[in-house]
This record gives sequence, C-alpha cells and structure tokens, in this order.
Amino acid sequence: MHIDILTLFPEMFPGVFQSSILNKAREKGKYSYNLVDFREYSDNKHAKVDDYPYGGGAGMVLQPQPVFDAVEAVTSTKATKPRIILMCPQGEPYNQQKAEELAKEEHLVIICGHYEGYDERIREHLVTDEISIGDYVLTGGELGAMVVVDSVVRLLPDVLGNEQSAPMDSFSTGLLEHPHYTRPADFRGMKVPEVLLSGDHAKIETWRTKQSLKRTYERRKDLFEGLSLSPQEQQLLNEIKKQ
Amino acid sequence: MHIDILTLFPEMFPGVFQSSILNKAREKGKYSYNLVDFREYSDNKHAKVDDYPYGGGAGMVLQPQPVFDAVEAVTSTKATKPRIILMCPQGEPYNQQKAEELAKEEHLVIICGHYEGYDERIREHLVTDEISIGDYVLTGGELGAMVVVDSVVRLLPDVLGNEQSAPMDSFSTGLLEHPHYTRPADFRGMKVPEVLLSGDHAKIETWRTKQSLKRTYERRKDLFEGLSLSPQEQQLLNEIKKQ
Repeated sequence: MHIDILTLFPEMFPGVFQSSILNKAREKGKYSYNLVDFREYSDNKHAKVDDYPYGGGAGMVLQPQPVFDAVEAVTSTKATKPRIILMCPQGEPYNQQKAEELAKEEHLVIICGHYEGYDERIREHLVTDEISIGDYVLTGGELGAMVVVDSVVRLLPDVLGNEQSAPMDSFSTGLLEHPHYTRPADFRGMKVPEVLLSGDHAKIETWRTKQSLKRTYERRKDLFEGLSLSPQEQQLLNEIKKQ
Repeated sequence: MHIDILTLFPEMFPGVFQSSILNKAREKGKYSYNLVDFREYSDNKHAKVDDYPYGGGAGMVLQPQPVFDAVEAVTSTKATKPRIILMCPQGEPYNQQKAEELAKEEHLVIICGHYEGYDERIREHLVTDEISIGDYVLTGGELGAMVVVDSVVRLLPDVLGNEQSAPMDSFSTGLLEHPHYTRPADFRGMKVPEVLLSGDHAKIETWRTKQSLKRTYERRKDLFEGLSLSPQEQQLLNEIKKQ
C-alpha cells in the first residue's frame, strides 16, 4: 500500500510514522508514505492556498487549485484508482469497519485541511471519501490522517505479530474488552480476582465473557445494536441485567 | 494549564506539539507539557513494564507499579487535584463537550498504553476518566492523547484568534457546517452558487442555514437529537424533508 498525505504541516508526521509499528511496517516494505506540502502546488506568486469566503464570514477557505493540482500530481503516474480521502468534521464517522475497507486498497490519498474550511468543489468533484474521526474540533486534519494511517496499516498482512493483534481488537468482536490483570497478584492490597488464579480455563472463559458483556452494557449499550449474541452470551447478559 | 503525558514512545509527540497552534499556545505560555517515559519508573531491573495476563491469553498487560509510581511522581508536587485520563477503547466516547470540560482544568495527566491492555487496577484505583477517541483500534494511546491535547488547548483563552476560531466549530452549534467557497468563482467550469455572489446578506444567511441543516439531515441525523431548532430552522428543515 502507498499513502500520499497532502498537508501544510509535513513536519508533524515523522515522529509518529517513524515509531513503533508504523516504522516496522514501513521497514518491512508493507507500506510506504509520501508527505506532500500542497503549498508547493499553488499557482499564486506568494504561494497562497487560501482566500476569503464568498458571501462573507469569518475564517479563510482552502482554494481548489492547489489541492486539485497536488492530487493530480500524485495520482497521474499510478495505474490503480486511488481512494481520495478528505479529513473533515462533516465526514462519515470513522470506525473499524471503514479501516478494514481501506486496508484492502493499494493507494490512499489523504487531504488535511487546517483551521480553514475547504472550498466545496474539492468535496464535490475531487474526493471519494470524507472522514471524521470523531465529534470534536481539531486544529487541522493531520491528527485524523495519522489515525487513519495507524488503524489501516496495522491491519495489513504480516504487520502485527500474533501476540500484538488480539488484545485490543475490541471493535472486531463488537463488545468492549474484559478486564486484564498481571503481576503482582497483590499490589498495595489491590488483588487480582480469584478466578483468574484458579487455573480453571472454562470458568475463566465464562468470567471474561460476562465481564465483557457487563462492561459493554454499563458503558456502551449502543454497541449491542446489530450484534447477534450466542445463547450463552444472552443468558449471561440476562443475569447482568437482573443484578 | 499543565499536561503530563505518560508514554513509552515520547519521540512521537514533539513533531505535533511543536507545530502550528499547539506551538504558539506553548510559546505564549497558555499551556505547558511534559513527556514522561514511564519505563523509567519500573522497579524491575530490566525496566520491564508489562507481563503475561493472569488466566492466560494473548497479549501482554501493562503492570500497575510503573504507572502508579509515574503518576504519583508528576502529581505529588502539585497543589491542585489533576484529572488522570486513561486513553483506551473501552472509555467514554470523546466529544466536544468533554473537550470543553477538560479545558477548565489546571492539570491533566494522560496515560497512553501501547498494544497491551492495562492492568484493571490502574482503571479502578488510579484514573479519574477513561476516554476513547472513536470506535477503531489504534496501535497505542499516543494519537488519542494528541487529539485530546489539541482539542483542549485550542479552547484555552486567547489561544485562537477570532479569524481562526469560528469556521470549524461545527460541533459547538450542534449542526454540520454549510459549504464554503472562495476564489475563483469559476474553477475549470465548476462555479460558485449565484447566491454567494449576490451581496444579499439576508439571503446568504438563509442559504447557509438551510445547507447546514440539509448536510446534517443527509449525513448525521443523530446530531438532531437533543437539539432545539428555531422556528425558521424548523421550517427550513421541513422544506428539505419534502424535497
């Protein structure tokens, strides 16, 4: 997979992309990335990329020309049709399913705005996807782009070892994770639940399933929508509701 | 405001924190941050911070000792009670309201895990808030911490100029933003809507309100819940529904 990122702040990325899993994935050749400062594509002699909004109002708006030209520059040499993604608060809420969908692509282009809005023609005539990572306001699209890259790259084949992939994949099972405990069994008087020390694997499995259901029921009832529970899970959930 | 960030990957942060608004806010003394590698607080001779989960299973679990000790080190000298925030997929979904709440604090401590889960005793006995930035799986909590810092710091007094604060604050009004347009009026045959060139400010205002309602209706009906529309907005929304 190749990822082009269009940004006015390319210096924000290397610290994140050259750490941990993203760095290993790149070193192993599982993906490559390219940071494109789209200011370099401005046809304005002052390298301006934004201008006042038509109709008045506060804030500057990103002009279509530099963004269209930068996207064309990174896509024109590629044989495959890329996904062209706009990071914006008005976009489709990002989730694990979308990450899995993007992980199947060969080429992603991610456009990051900064304080300003985008000229609507970018949205209407250039991009294939608009993505919002959550209902909060950020200074720009850069952190969103990093979130998309991190969540997608870790799903690429052979990027994660088995020992890393399982534990945090809450959203793959649809439920929140059960509690974890590790050494020491007694930390300042706070103890690990007896069942986890029992060696009784069937009992441990049931405890974990129940805790996972309980946490989801208490914190995120919305996650049960569209989820089909097994008869055992349904029975455990009924017990939780009674308590 | 002071923010302590506990992480095993401190090198991920400077590129983001030393750019753009976050850098200006720090230079103006509006906030300060401190990166704490909690591996340095491990009492293990190999500086180990994780161990196998009790009860078996894949993945390593972050031990309580280094995290408790690192939090105590950064909070013991402060007079004010900090918010101690755990970044995790099981947390409360982060939103603009939570950002506004955190922006009122004097001291935040943010704990970032990495692939592993956290020992449950950290969750139960140490933290005041558990936050998830969205329903997707990331390699670690670092990007989440950056999202929290960016969204909070931009809300601090005198961090944003007026010309920057207004445009992207979709989630403050509760609706998605209306489309923006800037020069040129005709870009490769794609034109700016006539109304925005009309100079008729009342008409422009109505057009924008209607577009904002339309976008929210088409993309994020969920945002209407708990929102009280003005009579004019309600009438515009009725027109949209009819079309």
